[in-house]
Amino acid sequence: MDFTFSPRVVEWRERIAEFVETVVVPREQVAFANGVDDELRRELQAAARDAMVWAPQAPAELGGGGFSLAESAVLLEEAGYSLIGPLALNCHAPDEGNIHMLDLIATSPQREKYLIPLVDGDIRSCFAMTEPPPGAGSDPSALRTTARRVAGGWEISGEKHLITGAEGAAFAIVMAKGGGGADGSSGSTMFLVDTDNPGWRLAGHARTIDTTMPGGHHRVELHEVFVPDEAVLGEPGRGFAYAQVRLAPARLTHCMRWLGAARRAHGIALERAVNREMFGSALADHGMAQAMIADNEIELVAARLVLWNTCWELDNGAPGTEESSRAKVFVSEAVNRIVDRSVQLCGGLGTSEEMVVGRIFADVRAFRIYDGASEVHRMSIAKHAAKRVRAAQAAE
Amino acid sequence: MDFTFSPRVVEWRERIAEFVETVVVPREQVAFANGVDDELRRELQAAARDAMVWAPQAPAELGGGGFSLAESAVLLEEAGYSLIGPLALNCHAPDEGNIHMLDLIATSPQREKYLIPLVDGDIRSCFAMTEPPPGAGSDPSALRTTARRVAGGWEISGEKHLITGAEGAAFAIVMAKGGGGADGSSGSTMFLVDTDNPGWRLAGHARTIDTTMPGGHHRVELHEVFVPDEAVLGEPGRGFAYAQVRLAPARLTHCMRWLGAARRAHGIALERAVNREMFGSALADHGMAQAMIADNEIELVAARLVLWNTCWELDNGAPGTEESSRAKVFVSEAVNRIVDRSVQLCGGLGTSEEMVVGRIFADVRAFRIYDGASEVHRMSIAKHAAKRVRAAQAAE
Amino acid sequence: MDFTFSPRVVEWRERIAEFVETVVVPREQVAFANGVDDELRRELQAAARDAMVWAPQAPAELGGGGFSLAESAVLLEEAGYSLIGPLALNCHAPDEGNIHMLDLIATSPQREKYLIPLVDGDIRSCFAMTEPPPGAGSDPSALRTTARRVAGGWEISGEKHLITGAEGAAFAIVMAKGGGGADGSSGSTMFLVDTDNPGWRLAGHARTIDTTMPGGHHRVELHEVFVPDEAVLGEPGRGFAYAQVRLAPARLTHCMRWLGAARRAHGIALERAVNREMFGSALADHGMAQAMIADNEIELVAARLVLWNTCWELDNGAPGTEESSRAKVFVSEAVNRIVDRSVQLCGGLGTSEEMVVGRIFADVRAFRIYDGASEVHRMSIAKHAAKRVRAAQAAE
Amino acid sequence: MDFTFSPRVVEWRERIAEFVETVVVPREQVAFANGVDDELRRELQAAARDAMVWAPQAPAELGGGGFSLAESAVLLEEAGYSLIGPLALNCHAPDEGNIHMLDLIATSPQREKYLIPLVDGDIRSCFAMTEPPPGAGSDPSALRTTARRVAGGWEISGEKHLITGAEGAAFAIVMAKGGGGADGSSGSTMFLVDTDNPGWRLAGHARTIDTTMPGGHHRVELHEVFVPDEAVLGEPGRGFAYAQVRLAPARLTHCMRWLGAARRAHGIALERAVNREMFGSALADHGMAQAMIADNEIELVAARLVLWNTCWELDNGAPGTEESSRAKVFVSEAVNRIVDRSVQLCGGLGTSEEMVVGRIFADVRAFRIYDGASEVHRMSIAKHAAKRVRAAQAAE
Repeated sequence: MDFTFSPRVVEWRERIAEFVETVVVPREQVAFANGVDDELRRELQAAARDAMVWAPQAPAELGGGGFSLAESAVLLEEAGYSLIGPLALNCHAPDEGNIHMLDLIATSPQREKYLIPLVDGDIRSCFAMTEPPPGAGSDPSALRTTARRVAGGWEISGEKHLITGAEGAAFAIVMAKGGGGADGSSGSTMFLVDTDNPGWRLAGHARTIDTTMPGGHHRVELHEVFVPDEAVLGEPGRGFAYAQVRLAPARLTHCMRWLGAARRAHGIALERAVNREMFGSALADHGMAQAMIADNEIELVAARLVLWNTCWELDNGAPGTEESSRAKVFVSEAVNRIVDRSVQLCGGLGTSEEMVVGRIFADVRAFRIYDGASEVHRMSIAKHAAKRVRAAQAAE
Repeated sequence: MDFTFSPRVVEWRERIAEFVETVVVPREQVAFANGVDDELRRELQAAARDAMVWAPQAPAELGGGGFSLAESAVLLEEAGYSLIGPLALNCHAPDEGNIHMLDLIATSPQREKYLIPLVDGDIRSCFAMTEPPPGAGSDPSALRTTARRVAGGWEISGEKHLITGAEGAAFAIVMAKGGGGADGSSGSTMFLVDTDNPGWRLAGHARTIDTTMPGGHHRVELHEVFVPDEAVLGEPGRGFAYAQVRLAPARLTHCMRWLGAARRAHGIALERAVNREMFGSALADHGMAQAMIADNEIELVAARLVLWNTCWELDNGAPGTEESSRAKVFVSEAVNRIVDRSVQLCGGLGTSEEMVVGRIFADVRAFRIYDGASEVHRMSIAKHAAKRVRAAQAAE
Repeated sequence: MDFTFSPRVVEWRERIAEFVETVVVPREQVAFANGVDDELRRELQAAARDAMVWAPQAPAELGGGGFSLAESAVLLEEAGYSLIGPLALNCHAPDEGNIHMLDLIATSPQREKYLIPLVDGDIRSCFAMTEPPPGAGSDPSALRTTARRVAGGWEISGEKHLITGAEGAAFAIVMAKGGGGADGSSGSTMFLVDTDNPGWRLAGHARTIDTTMPGGHHRVELHEVFVPDEAVLGEPGRGFAYAQVRLAPARLTHCMRWLGAARRAHGIALERAVNREMFGSALADHGMAQAMIADNEIELVAARLVLWNTCWELDNGAPGTEESSRAKVFVSEAVNRIVDRSVQLCGGLGTSEEMVVGRIFADVRAFRIYDGASEVHRMSIAKHAAKRVRAAQAAE
Repeated sequence: MDFTFSPRVVEWRERIAEFVETVVVPREQVAFANGVDDELRRELQAAARDAMVWAPQAPAELGGGGFSLAESAVLLEEAGYSLIGPLALNCHAPDEGNIHMLDLIATSPQREKYLIPLVDGDIRSCFAMTEPPPGAGSDPSALRTTARRVAGGWEISGEKHLITGAEGAAFAIVMAKGGGGADGSSGSTMFLVDTDNPGWRLAGHARTIDTTMPGGHHRVELHEVFVPDEAVLGEPGRGFAYAQVRLAPARLTHCMRWLGAARRAHGIALERAVNREMFGSALADHGMAQAMIADNEIELVAARLVLWNTCWELDNGAPGTEESSRAKVFVSEAVNRIVDRSVQLCGGLGTSEEMVVGRIFADVRAFRIYDGASEVHRMSIAKHAAKRVRAAQAAE
């Protein structure tokens, strides 16, 4: 057993920490007040390159850091220390997950056209899977957007919603029903759709309480979107399998980033608790505040360890479904509790963007829902556990 | 023991329920998107008068409903069913609490100038007690804004923050140190300050995650604000005692309104759970969703009963410090849990304003902090309990 | 709305409080060390009669107090202040529930033979419904003990377990499948079975961690138990309906008694916290202890109000299924939390019988399971809630 | 980062698992019903030696396994799978902690007389630090048992309570005030006291709800206990420092053992949930049961990782105060939650010794109190956190 990291990881961590502290944090209030636009993104990303902290998790041959998942856990937590840090380092959702999947599945021309400019930060992308009811949400099998074979390619129709980053994205990875089997109607398929495709239409921005995802969350309509065969990502009909390739690590990188945000919230709250006098002593010396501080300290460590262990398992070849479900539930809920306590410790301004903690609180809530709601992961974990017992009983 | 209400309460409740459903709810999305401005306020308030649901808690002789605190609990919960319902009915914070206190303490001319137009909805007001650190927050004794006797009146200087409704208010009730004792320097005093007083200056709007309080939360500077003797509310030096008069019922009316919002959130979530199909059956039929639904049902009832009982105690002459602390902690935390579960049940759109639940979630968080943070009330409750034991032991 | 009780209730409460404090509490350590035997029971019950606190909830015409359910809530909480108080007052489980049901259903001869001596404390009884897996537990429809018509009466065969009070009981109310319909094979039926019936056999005492239920929890085998027609309680085939008659109030009287035990635990913890010096001040003045004390204070009140309201609803004719489920879940879980915090406040001896709190802790755990596990009640509450929404939607 | 263990650890783990399953578990019900006597202990310990699983954590040169703390975490969890497993393997409290401390501090003759027979299982021991109020409990500085210099040695007087294993112990390590400084009156000192010393008197067995600690928890009186100078353990006056040497690892080995017990409880509950049919499907397939199963699965992993990481830190030279506080709080509370859910999943028999889970539930409660109550560790963690902030601010 060993909990140390290589010197290269340690170096990057320090560089990222300094970059976030000195370059990103000072730009936060502007981003909170005006939203995260592409101008700010380009400015921060240029600075990140200069600071040599670019895209830690992206393939080294494309200019990224090339770090393993476990190593990325350390580095993306550091990036997440500011809500706009991951964007600056180009390791934010959904681009980071799309980079990961494209690197594994894309053809050479697709890499050229989509992956390279995405890693370079020249363009942004989105991942269009979630649909409004009664379509695919926590239950992906309910997919209703459909692809059908037409001359020279495919025609995709349907509706998506909560598509993060849709506004301003250059392309979307669209999940649609069909494409597999002899007649191309079974399974599901992923397509690369340029957002200037005439059938791709933004149909409304969801007014969610989180505000720091670049491009927001959009409703999208796909009106007989025509794409050529070259737009298929991977093999037709295997969309669900590819989704798994994306989802397990993507939920872990979410954990990494939000863990950084939770640590930030705790740090702000702790500093405030030390400096705020109340009833004759520092808030940090009051028992109930100590309980909140201690629980934050404990849960930050516990969440980090569960995350690291899961990443290590995936790096070492574990399928990771069960592990990543466990990590997603534990980290997302711990993060929410930590941030909630931090708000409480900050008192009246705890719900404000000025103290940052309020912004983190509002942004982090949806994390218990997307990438599989806590309940769906719990169901999955319990099924795995029951299956093991049943298998053991059958073997007796 | 009896849990029934008078026919008049039942009638008002039904009228309010219908008014909120048919008049207020349809205006919510506009209010969420654009903020609650005075135009919308006047429109809704005029409609409320027409619907005969005006100011249930305000004195009957001034045109209000004249209901007791326990009766108001029923009616203000109904108003709170929409986040902008209390504003429509003129029973919102901070005006409602100011009306209550002015009715008990104000002189005849003060009633004429401030109370009557406030009950009528002609003007809005604010309550300026909280100060930025190291001033008065959860510990009111840390008050730093100071009043000193000058020729013909008083001069007040200091800083306040998180003053809800400050923008657009016609006057403020300002809490300042001093005013009592022979030389006018001990205790604290409340003053009625017109917001066109040259020394009263708005110094910044806090960007908090709640957005439906009319007038927002402001930082205010008081630069040598001169007020005549007639601006003193009650007797000089007795400010803290008056604050208690306002605070106990004000925290209960908060509970009433937020309880309505929690019921609303639960209702939306429940309806969604019934209609949303997932993994082959309605979400409402899945065990983990049932657990959340049941906990909401249980806690809504429990919170309502704790609140009603406390109001009844106050109506019957109890000092109410301990009871209202208990109610504040229980209801504010139950409300937060209920709304949090409702968000979870609503899935991906649960954090959006479109589903209303997301707006309620963000608005309700601060309720565990203002009017005394949960921790301060717990401390107070525990002290009362320990005091009883010590008194009993001393008596042995 | 009114939270006062009649002078007669107040008088009884005071008498019970004094009786428990001066007569019952001093006998507790003996009961904990040696178990609750019939000798101790008779001694305490004789004293209770002398103190005029006998069987508050039992029908007045049979010598009980004749109080309503809501009034009994006050009095049985007082009895429950000692774990052996309810036994002393003859308002303990399962006899109290059996008295209630017999009073509603029993024939005149059955009243004579069973009810009157039971109310008088001459005999004890048990209620034999629960079965070992795969029989009737939280799902009563899984009943496997069967009754079949034979010449002159019925023959009952099956197995029961966790039958509280079976050892030493004079008779059992046995729930069996069948008895209804033309051929006597449908539905379920309740029978009065004397425990000297040769087919009734005690088959083992469960070594549970609770120890203060007189007669413990037993496994019972029914081997072709013959009973005459007069042994049928109510009408054949209607057993499930009668079970409801017993279960809703029986789970509320459980709540009453355990609430008293929780109050006791809190009282002991609070006294200890006031008197125990730690790190330079009384434990009761430490913030984390204050949080536990306050939560106990709050939850005792909340649980009591939920219970009272439910009892009042039942007294006023509500079916009470939903209400009593709500009360059962809330009170049983609150009681467990309160007692758990009390253990923690008591420190090293908190888990001991000497401090009483340890005994209460171990005894109270099963309360979240019997009379319907929390999960089963939550399921039921959620189904009611969903049904209301569906009905409203159908009506639109 | 690496989460693998050496082949030797893996081998031992498998051997221990098999030994516990096949030898220890079959003897549990006898131990639960009759208590853990020395005859059973000797039988199990002889079997453990034969199975080559003896004392994994004890020094190799004395016949133990010689494993590091992190390695012991794996092995003692396995031993803890049965409540009497640690006793069988001679890695139970308090002997295991005493072995650790004696190995670090004892003189050669002390090793000969006390340590060697203790490692060999020839004798048992106890650790006498805790005192009845107002003495040393969670606040060790309140120590009242006093040692004073007398001719040829020391005289110790005072009272101790909750001394685990006192009955049947051959010797005690006694913590007493004094012994340090020029006049031998400052600081505190540890003494090795033979239990046949005439001044050492057992004064009562605490009737706690846990029952599987061999020798139970005793009150002890020390009446002018004379011991020679050779009975001083380490240097006079340095008792508190030695206590730290014992306490940090001792609380971690507690975590290891209880984690095994929690895993056992979960395993029993899970098996029951898979096999128990309810409302038409297996309990394990009901949503609310799945939530409990999943939370157990998650928390077992999280607790194990927090524990392992802490052990690794201590193995690598960290002082470990903060880390071990964190692990103690997290593991003890997670263990209690896991076992509580397991009880619930087991239904009516969940509180029984027959299903083992009931016994674990009652035994595990005190773990949140001894070795420093959760509250004391939280206070300590928060102080460390605040201290870091203050130091950083001072450095600016």
